[in-house]
Amino acid sequence: MLKSIKKSPLYRIANPRSIALFGASSNILSMGTPILISLKAMGFEGTIYPVHPEEEHVQGFKAHRSVLDLPEVPDLAILILPARIVPRILEECGKMGIKHAIVVSGGFKELGGEGVKLENELQEIANTHEMRFLGPNCIGVTNPRHRLNTTLLQYLGNPGFIGMASQSGSFITQMFHYLANFGLGFSTAFSVGNEANVDIVDCMEYLGLCPHTRVIALYIEGIKRGKAFVETAKAIVTRKPIVALYVGGSETGRLAGLSHTGALAGPDPLYEGVFRQSGIIRARSITELFDLCWVLGALPLPKGKKVVIQTHSGGPGAEAADFCGRAGLELPALSPDTINRITPFMPETSSVHNPVDFTFTKNLIDYFSSIPSLLLEDKNADMLLIYLFMPQQSVKRALEHLGIPKDQAAEKSRELLDAQSQSIASVLKTHTKPLVGYTYRSIQEDFIRGLIDRGVPVFPSTERAVHALESLVRYAELRGRSTGNAEHGFPTGRSAI
Amino acid sequence: MLKSIKKSPLYRIANPRSIALFGASSNILSMGTPILISLKAMGFEGTIYPVHPEEEHVQGFKAHRSVLDLPEVPDLAILILPARIVPRILEECGKMGIKHAIVVSGGFKELGGEGVKLENELQEIANTHEMRFLGPNCIGVTNPRHRLNTTLLQYLGNPGFIGMASQSGSFITQMFHYLANFGLGFSTAFSVGNEANVDIVDCMEYLGLCPHTRVIALYIEGIKRGKAFVETAKAIVTRKPIVALYVGGSETGRLAGLSHTGALAGPDPLYEGVFRQSGIIRARSITELFDLCWVLGALPLPKGKKVVIQTHSGGPGAEAADFCGRAGLELPALSPDTINRITPFMPETSSVHNPVDFTFTKNLIDYFSSIPSLLLEDKNADMLLIYLFMPQQSVKRALEHLGIPKDQAAEKSRELLDAQSQSIASVLKTHTKPLVGYTYRSIQEDFIRGLIDRGVPVFPSTERAVHALESLVRYAELRGRSTGNAEHGFPTGRSAI
Repeated sequence: MLKSIKKSPLYRIANPRSIALFGASSNILSMGTPILISLKAMGFEGTIYPVHPEEEHVQGFKAHRSVLDLPEVPDLAILILPARIVPRILEECGKMGIKHAIVVSGGFKELGGEGVKLENELQEIANTHEMRFLGPNCIGVTNPRHRLNTTLLQYLGNPGFIGMASQSGSFITQMFHYLANFGLGFSTAFSVGNEANVDIVDCMEYLGLCPHTRVIALYIEGIKRGKAFVETAKAIVTRKPIVALYVGGSETGRLAGLSHTGALAGPDPLYEGVFRQSGIIRARSITELFDLCWVLGALPLPKGKKVVIQTHSGGPGAEAADFCGRAGLELPALSPDTINRITPFMPETSSVHNPVDFTFTKNLIDYFSSIPSLLLEDKNADMLLIYLFMPQQSVKRALEHLGIPKDQAAEKSRELLDAQSQSIASVLKTHTKPLVGYTYRSIQEDFIRGLIDRGVPVFPSTERAVHALESLVRYAELRGRSTGNAEHGFPTGRSAI
Repeated sequence: MLKSIKKSPLYRIANPRSIALFGASSNILSMGTPILISLKAMGFEGTIYPVHPEEEHVQGFKAHRSVLDLPEVPDLAILILPARIVPRILEECGKMGIKHAIVVSGGFKELGGEGVKLENELQEIANTHEMRFLGPNCIGVTNPRHRLNTTLLQYLGNPGFIGMASQSGSFITQMFHYLANFGLGFSTAFSVGNEANVDIVDCMEYLGLCPHTRVIALYIEGIKRGKAFVETAKAIVTRKPIVALYVGGSETGRLAGLSHTGALAGPDPLYEGVFRQSGIIRARSITELFDLCWVLGALPLPKGKKVVIQTHSGGPGAEAADFCGRAGLELPALSPDTINRITPFMPETSSVHNPVDFTFTKNLIDYFSSIPSLLLEDKNADMLLIYLFMPQQSVKRALEHLGIPKDQAAEKSRELLDAQSQSIASVLKTHTKPLVGYTYRSIQEDFIRGLIDRGVPVFPSTERAVHALESLVRYAELRGRSTGNAEHGFPTGRSAI
């Protein structure tokens, strides 16, 4: 394991001070052009040197005929060129003394035949010149804090805490918008492509040391260095969680992976074993990958697997209870003390079983502050799962019926819902136990957005919320084991990352 | 089985011409009040008779002191009253000659003890007066075409094709907004509550005969009349599909269901057997329940289980292939004829394997019209699954770079995307094979909404899209078996419903 992130072959790939860019032009139809647009849009603060055989200027930058003409040796070369000329240009970069590259171009091992030979050439050139490169057949790196984005699409949202290494570039760029919708973002994301030189293990090592990465996401179609993968993951998960989506376990998935990156996927049980041995939490889908990253990066770890469910509706409570049962989570009875304390808040029709079903919301402020606080304080509760259904339209209508003039009701209802999301967020902040919401309302609604923006994970399905809690328990168990905390089986908190 | 829907005990419950309403007042805090608001908001065209012991007028309606004072015998009584007075009022309704009721009030069998006795009283009163009633402990009926909505929340969106019977009222009312977001709606939805008189089997029978119901959704925590349930379902599924979510299979879910409706849930394998024997397709979650209803109600049935995946991104293609494999769907090779026909559309880096990965979109119009058409025409293809990623922002930016002035680019990009969603919708309309989209963009985006509004199901996750296709295959297999179409194992189309 590396001691310092600066020793990583990816350090200057993710944090270049200057870039030589091959393949960008003023023609929007050439693939390099939108990459230069992305680089500019992100506000990259280093120097960009477009290299172009004909154009004098590329999108406002002075272009150079050859990399050998550049006034300095750039930290990084990015190649978006037809595959057949990539070796020649990489060779020139090597001669110039450039030590790091991203080869975006496709047309290598993933196509077989000639492509395999071309890829071998790249490897030889890199070895000769002691270069390290990402790709080929990748979309590079997004490091929003360094204002670096070498991908085709513009980064959206804020820099986040998810570090990603992906064998699919789409699962980086095409998720910018998706993650921003949930208030999430990448710390640094690597598209590894064919992994001809730098591979997913190198990325994990980098992200393990990255101070902005609180959780690592992997998208895997096949692992090459099995032993190194397991060793590296094992060392990292004692400090920060790793979540992986593996595609290729089914025969059809395996064949799809083969044509996508040329990686040879293995049977599902083999990978299941690798993840288990590594202490990696496995996600079932790309949405679940990011769901688990969300809670693992944002919430404290639970001390055990006991979930209290707070609801005002029977069906959503029962569905959550059922999913908890299937996920191996427990639903403890409330302690007599808690029952005493919450009884004043409970209407006649309500149930003090778990799910705690209020049947309806007597007082909104209680429902969103005193009640979740009391439930989290129960000695039997390790986590709180809270059902959220608060349509702004209904609140507005209720206010109108209470005599608030129509023209003020909209504003008042917004204020009320804002105060409520503030209340829940405060509950989360003042307790050391995790709290997660679930809803069937749109996550674009003010109330839900207010919660998400304040750091409360809210999932648009019961199943997803429960699987997220399950991952917290599994990681807490793992941390308990790996730190030898045998007494509880669970650590009592998270070390600073 | 009933021959005519008009013979159903639920006919006048779902299609009343006049309603006696107990429990609504001018006080917003009494639970009956928002129900009257909902009834009014839906524009109910029959007569509403609020009955109130003190108020002269209730929300603009003349109130009567007693049901016995009404000028006619209403078709339906709706009771939203404290449990202890419900028997007395139901008795009065019986004396008045009212034959149908909805008992919204809770506080009966679900509470045990005295509640059980009270519920028995209701049953005896109904038997004496030959009344049929829904509930207690339910939220009644939504039949948007009859402009009837007895629930607490206002109906949203258009009348739809999903008929529902639910042991949770929340999964009806709190899904109005959710369904409208996907362009879906209820034909008629029944909240069955404690099923003291009318039960879920009666609802299935009604919905089986309902001409606006193309697919039946059930939310089940426990079945009482097992044999009748199986017989009724078996008869219906030869004509229209039934999808069920069962909660209570895990021990924790079972206990939650017990306190929710007082139904005794059985072990999961028992229910699995019941569904299998009945020809009911089981959903894993409430979101999946409506996902499956969507495709089963909106799409033609496939002739087999072969899926062609169209993508321009490797990762989403590989994930879809993996899910198809796990779901038992097959990914056929394209026929040589199709390969010849699509080759002109394929860039150099693309793959004519399945997933058909275009790697990027050379020409948007081809990608959304000629290509899916050619793929659906392949004799090896039973279904098409198409990955959608078309951010309006990117299209706008591309247009700007092509020289379209900034102020026109937004409008042009909207037009372009609208034309594309029109193209895909046409492909679906001109073929008899199902087509489903999947995306990680928001379903609120113009392009995706354009597709949904034109009848193309688009799912916000790969997994959900694949499970939806899987349900089509399962229902097609079932229909093939039940109609004795042994040769294909699949029917060739859908009979008119």
